[in-house]
Amino acid sequence: MFLRNYWYVAAAAEELGSRLIQRWILNEPVLLYRTSAGRCVAMQDICPHRSYPLSKGTRIGDRVECGYHGLQFDPTGACVHVPAQGSAPRGSAVRTYRLVEKWRWVWIWMGDDALADERLIPDMHWNDDPSWYPVNGHLYIKCHYQLLADNLLDLSHEAFVHKSTIGNAAVAENPVESRVEGDLVVVERLMPGCPAPPLYQKLRGYDGPINRSHRIEFRPPANIVIHSKSEPVGSNDPARALRYVVLNAITPATETATHHFWGVPRDFAPEPEITEIMQKGSERAFGEDVGVLEDQQAMIGHLGADPPWVNIRADAGGIQARRIVDRLAAEERRGGGR
Amino acid sequence: MFLRNYWYVAAAAEELGSRLIQRWILNEPVLLYRTSAGRCVAMQDICPHRSYPLSKGTRIGDRVECGYHGLQFDPTGACVHVPAQGSAPRGSAVRTYRLVEKWRWVWIWMGDDALADERLIPDMHWNDDPSWYPVNGHLYIKCHYQLLADNLLDLSHEAFVHKSTIGNAAVAENPVESRVEGDLVVVERLMPGCPAPPLYQKLRGYDGPINRSHRIEFRPPANIVIHSKSEPVGSNDPARALRYVVLNAITPATETATHHFWGVPRDFAPEPEITEIMQKGSERAFGEDVGVLEDQQAMIGHLGADPPWVNIRADAGGIQARRIVDRLAAEERRGGGR
Amino acid sequence: MFLRNYWYVAAAAEELGSRLIQRWILNEPVLLYRTSAGRCVAMQDICPHRSYPLSKGTRIGDRVECGYHGLQFDPTGACVHVPAQGSAPRGSAVRTYRLVEKWRWVWIWMGDDALADERLIPDMHWNDDPSWYPVNGHLYIKCHYQLLADNLLDLSHEAFVHKSTIGNAAVAENPVESRVEGDLVVVERLMPGCPAPPLYQKLRGYDGPINRSHRIEFRPPANIVIHSKSEPVGSNDPARALRYVVLNAITPATETATHHFWGVPRDFAPEPEITEIMQKGSERAFGEDVGVLEDQQAMIGHLGADPPWVNIRADAGGIQARRIVDRLAAEERRGGGR
Repeated sequence: MFLRNYWYVAAAAEELGSRLIQRWILNEPVLLYRTSAGRCVAMQDICPHRSYPLSKGTRIGDRVECGYHGLQFDPTGACVHVPAQGSAPRGSAVRTYRLVEKWRWVWIWMGDDALADERLIPDMHWNDDPSWYPVNGHLYIKCHYQLLADNLLDLSHEAFVHKSTIGNAAVAENPVESRVEGDLVVVERLMPGCPAPPLYQKLRGYDGPINRSHRIEFRPPANIVIHSKSEPVGSNDPARALRYVVLNAITPATETATHHFWGVPRDFAPEPEITEIMQKGSERAFGEDVGVLEDQQAMIGHLGADPPWVNIRADAGGIQARRIVDRLAAEERRGGGR
Repeated sequence: MFLRNYWYVAAAAEELGSRLIQRWILNEPVLLYRTSAGRCVAMQDICPHRSYPLSKGTRIGDRVECGYHGLQFDPTGACVHVPAQGSAPRGSAVRTYRLVEKWRWVWIWMGDDALADERLIPDMHWNDDPSWYPVNGHLYIKCHYQLLADNLLDLSHEAFVHKSTIGNAAVAENPVESRVEGDLVVVERLMPGCPAPPLYQKLRGYDGPINRSHRIEFRPPANIVIHSKSEPVGSNDPARALRYVVLNAITPATETATHHFWGVPRDFAPEPEITEIMQKGSERAFGEDVGVLEDQQAMIGHLGADPPWVNIRADAGGIQARRIVDRLAAEERRGGGR
Repeated sequence: MFLRNYWYVAAAAEELGSRLIQRWILNEPVLLYRTSAGRCVAMQDICPHRSYPLSKGTRIGDRVECGYHGLQFDPTGACVHVPAQGSAPRGSAVRTYRLVEKWRWVWIWMGDDALADERLIPDMHWNDDPSWYPVNGHLYIKCHYQLLADNLLDLSHEAFVHKSTIGNAAVAENPVESRVEGDLVVVERLMPGCPAPPLYQKLRGYDGPINRSHRIEFRPPANIVIHSKSEPVGSNDPARALRYVVLNAITPATETATHHFWGVPRDFAPEPEITEIMQKGSERAFGEDVGVLEDQQAMIGHLGADPPWVNIRADAGGIQARRIVDRLAAEERRGGGR
């Protein structure tokens, strides 16, 4: 079961256009497209007539025509044409979902409509701010979404999974501090006087030790913002600092598959060559996690739903995040909403 | 569960020869071959000794020798040789099934032997009649057999699935009439003064509007005969008419896989070039349905056994057919037979 | 369920080195490697922290470092390092298994440690004896392990499955005698004055009839030693005799997958060319069984757990072996151990 009364990223804003896209979200197939006026549309990707996926059909203006028997649906989900028949039968409307375009992503609300409130969309403004230069991507990972949240809440794995990009021993060997503020989890790690990882040397020409820090913020269900800061030991020159934010919008596809929408905006070096390095480096680093998460999921699948995990100190943030989700899920089940 | 006390097509007559063929029918593996005297044989494709498929074995004259331990079975299913052993043990006979070769197909009876009656084989004589010129084919479709029956009982889908061959808007926009006569369902659609679809233009050189009609007959479990007739508006010239029959023998393989044996006999233009056009055109049209049916089955599999379908008028025939099958299945369960 | 208080072959001795190997045994993932001092190590291939397979990690000297979060385990399974943390948490040890290197194989004990006794390793000394010349191999077969034991306890299948290598009609048509001595099953077949099979002709230049015999010994759970002897009819010349032993150590991987570790030591013709012929011939013969066993398993999977098998005389040994395993399994369940 997933938390429903939350905004999830359904797509990158630039993905949506005239094409009909199918995307699984919270274990449901969703049809996504954009009207000719530019409005984003999401509806259940199942024709109510005979269960054929609407995404296999055709755009007729802003309508979707089912590819099997030709029923047509408008962007509100109303069935507006049935071949050889004057009016649509009762119950033929398709469920639609509210979408909001924000921070260069399209957010979907699949819960109780009465609770939908745009102000609940988590702050990811760095992805759409003129003084920040983002790179972005989307991965489909065959694991439960909380395995990806665990991964991002304990960056000590960088020392083992991301040796070639952003990790080195310093990340693992410096302890973290974590705390809970309401539904927010904050995890911080200071790494004073540590060697610069390979990607940082490439980006900033670091040739000596750096002071590095991570500040990770988790908001349920699984929005994770990582503030990363580095500067050469002893330097106060802002032109030598390396600061970026790692935005992670995690959307469950099914119980064992997850969408990872990520963005990495930086506040330095707007040059396209540096953007290229950031894009390639981020794709490579996030790509390194995919195999790890899928191997972990496969083993958990073998062991059954609740393997007996032994915890270490670095898990504190992940454990706190899971407790918050468990509490909120219990509240949703009781009908407490949000 | 499938209706058992019915004849199903197991194979095209020309498929059966000296080769051992495995074919799944009503969720059972069946071994098919033809004796040296030309008689068709069907038996359960499971060696009673250690469950090895007999179809993996060898023909020894008219016998089948198991490819694992060499037990031999004659065409009656009797075990007639066990290596290093004088006589066959009790219970070593394999179940055989009655086969009848008719209308260029081989029909199998997998129900109660006492009820097998060749006169119950549905009329598909057009497939083996000197005044008709058939083309034929066999598809294996990963869907429940009733999805294919639904498909053939509502040809309005031609306008959407078969745009490039036999469909156009006229098929969908003209209403159907359907009626039930005992276990027979008849669906009729008149399409006066409609444009000729691409394949018809090619076959008959039509350059103006035509009067077109479909008459569909369903007999349980899923034998569907479609009479298709067209002629130019205002013409009485039989040489310009286009008449063919679409024969559909639908055999469940498993709960989610189906054999579609089809034939399309016509009563005009016996020339091989036209036969070639009919063969290619039919293969293309039936092939267009495969992806649609498999996508529909996949979505139904996700939704569970009984998705809440909304019905439209064009579904009348399919709904009537399903009701007949449900009633007959209830009768079989009560032991009422046929 | 599998018998646990028995030695199973986990690997060929030569497979184990610095590399981390994952092997499924008795439905558990096992990590195998060899320390720098040459000792073989086996432990559960699941990091107790977050269930990542340890075999995906890295060797740090004789330790294994988890590839996800860097926990380190020594060859006793103890967790000896947790990044950014002084001591390992309780419960962080990984289960290890006793290994014994014997007869060029590595044997694993996955049952009750108190019952592990090296003297219970079955005699397969021919595989590591200076007067015998072995060839060896390992197959992974997608079938229950008892289907492979059945296969080896009834060699009449050689006449059908191994026509091109070691089988001919004589193997099937001469009856077997079998007897039980405690937990041992012995199956014997005499084949006087029979034609030499293709591989034998190639190995020994036989051009007339031979006297051939098989003596098969089964010890639970599934260790099978086959003594094969042949000589030309009327000859007493030991230089014309053909004698080899077929060693079969059968290790369940999962309920439907099996490791077949085989060795074929001979006591004649040590020349490398003959070793090459024996290696190729054995690989080909054992390879011929793989498809048969997998097709049999697939059919059994369709029929359900206990298909109603009809027995023939040649099955006597296999049936006796299964009875012994059933009795021992019942004893293990009652806690009787071994």
